[in-house]
Amino acid sequence: MSYNSFGHMLRVTTFGESHGPALGCVVDGCPPLIPISEEEIQVFMDKRRPGQSRFTTQRREPDTVKILSGVFDDDTGQQVTTGTPICLMIENVDQRSKDYSQIKDKFRPGHADFTYLKKYGIRDYRGGGRQSARETAARVAAGAIARKIVPDMRVRGALVQVGEHEIDRDNWDWDEVDRNPFFCPDAEAAAVWEPYLDHIRKSGSSCGAIIEVVVDGVPAGLGAPIYAKLDQDLASALMSINAVKGVEIGAGFKAAGLSGAENADEMRMEDGQPIFLSNHAGGILGGISTGQEIISRFVVKPTSSILTPRQTVDKFGNDTDIITKGRHDPCVGIRAVPIGEAMAALVVVDHYLLHRGQMGEK
Amino acid sequence: MSYNSFGHMLRVTTFGESHGPALGCVVDGCPPLIPISEEEIQVFMDKRRPGQSRFTTQRREPDTVKILSGVFDDDTGQQVTTGTPICLMIENVDQRSKDYSQIKDKFRPGHADFTYLKKYGIRDYRGGGRQSARETAARVAAGAIARKIVPDMRVRGALVQVGEHEIDRDNWDWDEVDRNPFFCPDAEAAAVWEPYLDHIRKSGSSCGAIIEVVVDGVPAGLGAPIYAKLDQDLASALMSINAVKGVEIGAGFKAAGLSGAENADEMRMEDGQPIFLSNHAGGILGGISTGQEIISRFVVKPTSSILTPRQTVDKFGNDTDIITKGRHDPCVGIRAVPIGEAMAALVVVDHYLLHRGQMGEK
Amino acid sequence: MSYNSFGHMLRVTTFGESHGPALGCVVDGCPPLIPISEEEIQVFMDKRRPGQSRFTTQRREPDTVKILSGVFDDDTGQQVTTGTPICLMIENVDQRSKDYSQIKDKFRPGHADFTYLKKYGIRDYRGGGRQSARETAARVAAGAIARKIVPDMRVRGALVQVGEHEIDRDNWDWDEVDRNPFFCPDAEAAAVWEPYLDHIRKSGSSCGAIIEVVVDGVPAGLGAPIYAKLDQDLASALMSINAVKGVEIGAGFKAAGLSGAENADEMRMEDGQPIFLSNHAGGILGGISTGQEIISRFVVKPTSSILTPRQTVDKFGNDTDIITKGRHDPCVGIRAVPIGEAMAALVVVDHYLLHRGQMGEK
Amino acid sequence: MSYNSFGHMLRVTTFGESHGPALGCVVDGCPPLIPISEEEIQVFMDKRRPGQSRFTTQRREPDTVKILSGVFDDDTGQQVTTGTPICLMIENVDQRSKDYSQIKDKFRPGHADFTYLKKYGIRDYRGGGRQSARETAARVAAGAIARKIVPDMRVRGALVQVGEHEIDRDNWDWDEVDRNPFFCPDAEAAAVWEPYLDHIRKSGSSCGAIIEVVVDGVPAGLGAPIYAKLDQDLASALMSINAVKGVEIGAGFKAAGLSGAENADEMRMEDGQPIFLSNHAGGILGGISTGQEIISRFVVKPTSSILTPRQTVDKFGNDTDIITKGRHDPCVGIRAVPIGEAMAALVVVDHYLLHRGQMGEK
Repeated sequence: MSYNSFGHMLRVTTFGESHGPALGCVVDGCPPLIPISEEEIQVFMDKRRPGQSRFTTQRREPDTVKILSGVFDDDTGQQVTTGTPICLMIENVDQRSKDYSQIKDKFRPGHADFTYLKKYGIRDYRGGGRQSARETAARVAAGAIARKIVPDMRVRGALVQVGEHEIDRDNWDWDEVDRNPFFCPDAEAAAVWEPYLDHIRKSGSSCGAIIEVVVDGVPAGLGAPIYAKLDQDLASALMSINAVKGVEIGAGFKAAGLSGAENADEMRMEDGQPIFLSNHAGGILGGISTGQEIISRFVVKPTSSILTPRQTVDKFGNDTDIITKGRHDPCVGIRAVPIGEAMAALVVVDHYLLHRGQMGEK
Repeated sequence: MSYNSFGHMLRVTTFGESHGPALGCVVDGCPPLIPISEEEIQVFMDKRRPGQSRFTTQRREPDTVKILSGVFDDDTGQQVTTGTPICLMIENVDQRSKDYSQIKDKFRPGHADFTYLKKYGIRDYRGGGRQSARETAARVAAGAIARKIVPDMRVRGALVQVGEHEIDRDNWDWDEVDRNPFFCPDAEAAAVWEPYLDHIRKSGSSCGAIIEVVVDGVPAGLGAPIYAKLDQDLASALMSINAVKGVEIGAGFKAAGLSGAENADEMRMEDGQPIFLSNHAGGILGGISTGQEIISRFVVKPTSSILTPRQTVDKFGNDTDIITKGRHDPCVGIRAVPIGEAMAALVVVDHYLLHRGQMGEK
Repeated sequence: MSYNSFGHMLRVTTFGESHGPALGCVVDGCPPLIPISEEEIQVFMDKRRPGQSRFTTQRREPDTVKILSGVFDDDTGQQVTTGTPICLMIENVDQRSKDYSQIKDKFRPGHADFTYLKKYGIRDYRGGGRQSARETAARVAAGAIARKIVPDMRVRGALVQVGEHEIDRDNWDWDEVDRNPFFCPDAEAAAVWEPYLDHIRKSGSSCGAIIEVVVDGVPAGLGAPIYAKLDQDLASALMSINAVKGVEIGAGFKAAGLSGAENADEMRMEDGQPIFLSNHAGGILGGISTGQEIISRFVVKPTSSILTPRQTVDKFGNDTDIITKGRHDPCVGIRAVPIGEAMAALVVVDHYLLHRGQMGEK
Repeated sequence: MSYNSFGHMLRVTTFGESHGPALGCVVDGCPPLIPISEEEIQVFMDKRRPGQSRFTTQRREPDTVKILSGVFDDDTGQQVTTGTPICLMIENVDQRSKDYSQIKDKFRPGHADFTYLKKYGIRDYRGGGRQSARETAARVAAGAIARKIVPDMRVRGALVQVGEHEIDRDNWDWDEVDRNPFFCPDAEAAAVWEPYLDHIRKSGSSCGAIIEVVVDGVPAGLGAPIYAKLDQDLASALMSINAVKGVEIGAGFKAAGLSGAENADEMRMEDGQPIFLSNHAGGILGGISTGQEIISRFVVKPTSSILTPRQTVDKFGNDTDIITKGRHDPCVGIRAVPIGEAMAALVVVDHYLLHRGQMGEK
């Protein structure tokens, strides 16, 4: 069972609400002797952290991560994992004692206010409680550990579409991703997105986005058919991120329009190794990694926290209107990039351990 | 852990290879006293069964399902579930003693031949072994039981795109789905697809497709955030189907291009009940059902079993070519419709039981 | 979740009723390339099989096991596992069309008739249905595969107490176990048990027993604290066997009466290796194997199927009496020996794979 | 998978080391709207807390529990669960900056020092790190919540044997349990134990103990055969407690010496309800609760932390001796009583939810 946990052998359990004392996670099953420090994790926390540019929410959370367990000094004095559960805690500090009367009893359209109340009969309405995207801070922290486990594995994400504005793939430059506030790999697209997002932001509106995550350095053979396929677990992990409405691997939905001859990746020997001549499969065949880049993409819907008044009802059964005031992201997809990276890293590492268990090392 | 099992409380474990003695599944956790018979299951088996029209593979498998356990006569003599595991077995009969020398040592592009061998060091090459889409027969059998558990739940699927030919949603007619060999809800589209697929079939080529599955009669409140979200589990289940490369819920990838005002479904009271004025969310908010139709879509890549010679390598490290002769589907997406329905049914029922466990009945 | 499955990485799911068409199991997660055949499994089936001596039930079941999946010829033509799920099926043949009117509506004391009906609202009363010890045939089949996975692992069981008659541990001789119909390692005790059990059998009574299972050849380091401790999983596996009412490891309940100095196993170096000077711990410290013999013991209650009339009630709420006629075991503990071995083998192998996953091979 | 988690639907994950910053747990799957406060949990923490009498370790830990998530005010202002994960944290305060040179490199006999190092290649030697019984504080905290979920369920534990001194069951008085420092239900036995344990304590020795846990108010029908039997899960949960070497249910190991007629609990109708005339089964038949008291017993070995020098080796491969100085329990079994209660409560509640999921409410 898994309400608030995921992973087979590297198992992450998250806890915490947006405006409670703290949130965090327990990472269980991590191999021992992996060097890790709060500083290394913080680097990734800062990428996801709100308030980094005018294009993300101005809520000011330092998102400082504390390691509560599972790490100890090795013989050389370096901090390493011990194989026991690693609890990572992030205290909430910017919980303004806010007036919640506007949202306490009303269901915000596009939010989970209605469904949480229907399900549980109670909801923590402060900042969205458990439904808040603040929960994803715990994922990023866990992902920072995952990045260090598989030798040669590299996980990189990028924003490839904002609103209806796609990047030009011919311009793709990974170095560009760190040079603009959008994690955009195409400098020309970034230049278009900036005024577009400024307009969205100023008008109190929002837009959706598509994120691509690419993992390389993954050995062939990872993935556990039939029901823990690598692509299945990636789809599950990415779809679990707040506001995600779709996931695809490799050619994805475009595969519908391809012929079998176009879509299947041919093979040839090169330097004594089998190689693929293309990667429509996104690095996964039959649920198992091919050794190529693993390519996934997910769509994030536009945030529903906007300044336009919207029709809704309240919990007493009255028609009413609502405006979501306050600090919000014009495009939550931007901050979803490091989150997607973290989830992809966790999934691949999980399968690395799973494969090693069933097969032994080769 | 779940190599070959899925589900939280209604748990399905499948077994079997394409050309072994039998395949099947164990359905565990089914509530007792659900009336079920082999005949009822067979109805759905026949929808997925190959050889139903010239547009699906001509392999002749009766796909006769046998119930080995978990069902007994109630006091009235009706066959019902007993709450113990239900084993469903389908014997393989059309295992022509075929010449496998063409595929035994070569990796078919777009198939999992290479990855299975890389992972396991051995593979059952007869008909694809465990990678074969024959495994999905077990899913359909399990799904036939799932359909009977949640009162009022109805699961319907349709093919909405073949190659680049989409349906016109204004023509949508559920009754039409049973009138053509494509599970197509749009009679005009079906008329276009027929010659298109004949052309594909005769040229030994193949094309991809998009399937939509709609579940109605689902109460609000099902789904278990954060890591067993209803949409997450749907994505996982649908992505586990052979050849699926993408999954989306509600507006899906189109949500990227919408504004927050367009995308968020507004609410109003109607006859004393809260209703939604649209369904971009696809019936799921924050991972929990809203009570609306649950709408999912998945893309099936074109089968790689085609008559055009393709470049590949063999397991000895030689460059070679391959043609996949024999009986194949020009568009495997057609037969994916009942499979997608089965998976959606299993996921929703699983969450129905899970919800009832945590919450009790209301 | 696990109604009818157990194990973390080597996962066994069983199905089937005593008098249905077949019972069996799916073994999932088995490493590939393990040589296995129906004949090898049958050896262990025959040890558990009823009707082997006058001290076990005379029900005549050949218990012939069929492999339905997961096994294929390797390059040398030897049958080996492929890493995919192995379905093992045992058809029920001795399902005499018996008169069930005596037990159909009455609750046999000491049996699960009452609790199954209370839980499920229905029960398959033929031979006890799913509650029958016939289910353990599937465990023995799965265990036969498990025995082949860990190099050097050896699993041996013995009956160490029948009724109140214990063995003398000074007489322990493993070779003796195969020379008497009781799996007794003490020839003198066996000589006492024979007339004792004849008396029990002839008087239509029954007695309990204690079984000891010893696993050697297990490397130090297996076990996953805190909640998948090796001893915990052994306790769980052994307690899941029908009629088991207690489990202990090493010194077990006798540890209550020992002092800390007596109980703790001291260590010394020998030939450059750390060794223990005793084994009160039963080969497990902190839930992790020490490298010594793993020693577990479990108690099997006397079967409640006896010829003495007993007071009970029927499902209509009437007081009544019942005699269990038919073919039964005077001491079900005898046939529990190969079952206990199978469960211990499965648990240790599961932890071997789990350890290998988290740690890699050393 | 479950390294540091247990439970099917009510799932507890613990984290933390003896001398790290904090330990605690995440309780996931708790039904919403259960009233709970830190004060209520603290009552049970205090029962387990060290330093309560001269018979338990003098380590001074306040064991103050903090609720980090999952609890919110209901409409009346009362603190209740929300259905989201509840994180309970206990900060470690008495982590004397101690000299660990004595135990840093030596393996304490009877402790898990050797096995943790063998497994992980590193161990946190401060106070035993993760192997420390301090971890059980998290279990007691989780158990305090579990006690509130099943209406009418009552969980009570008692010490029934210390060293070789058993209680006289004819003297059993539950009220007596709170009147002596041993949780002993027999005043006469307690009077014997006091000087006995004083002697043990003063001589720097230790002794084992047996604890009995009784749960009443449990409806018939809980338990999930075959592999999540109620007794199996109890055995697993109790065996996971540090230093436990055996578990039994009902008549337990004594069942070996009973006849089938003696052991099977007969039934009669009383006031229109079926009742049992005895309870050798310990309230569980076929893995399912009968509605009677659920009776379990477990043995705790004598702590190996004693003042007598013991032979051991160090991690460099040298023979050496060790004395465990410092603050320890002469009989750790005493403090195991509230821990056993907590584990039993968690198991029964888990099955209550599981049953409700599969069956619905009746």
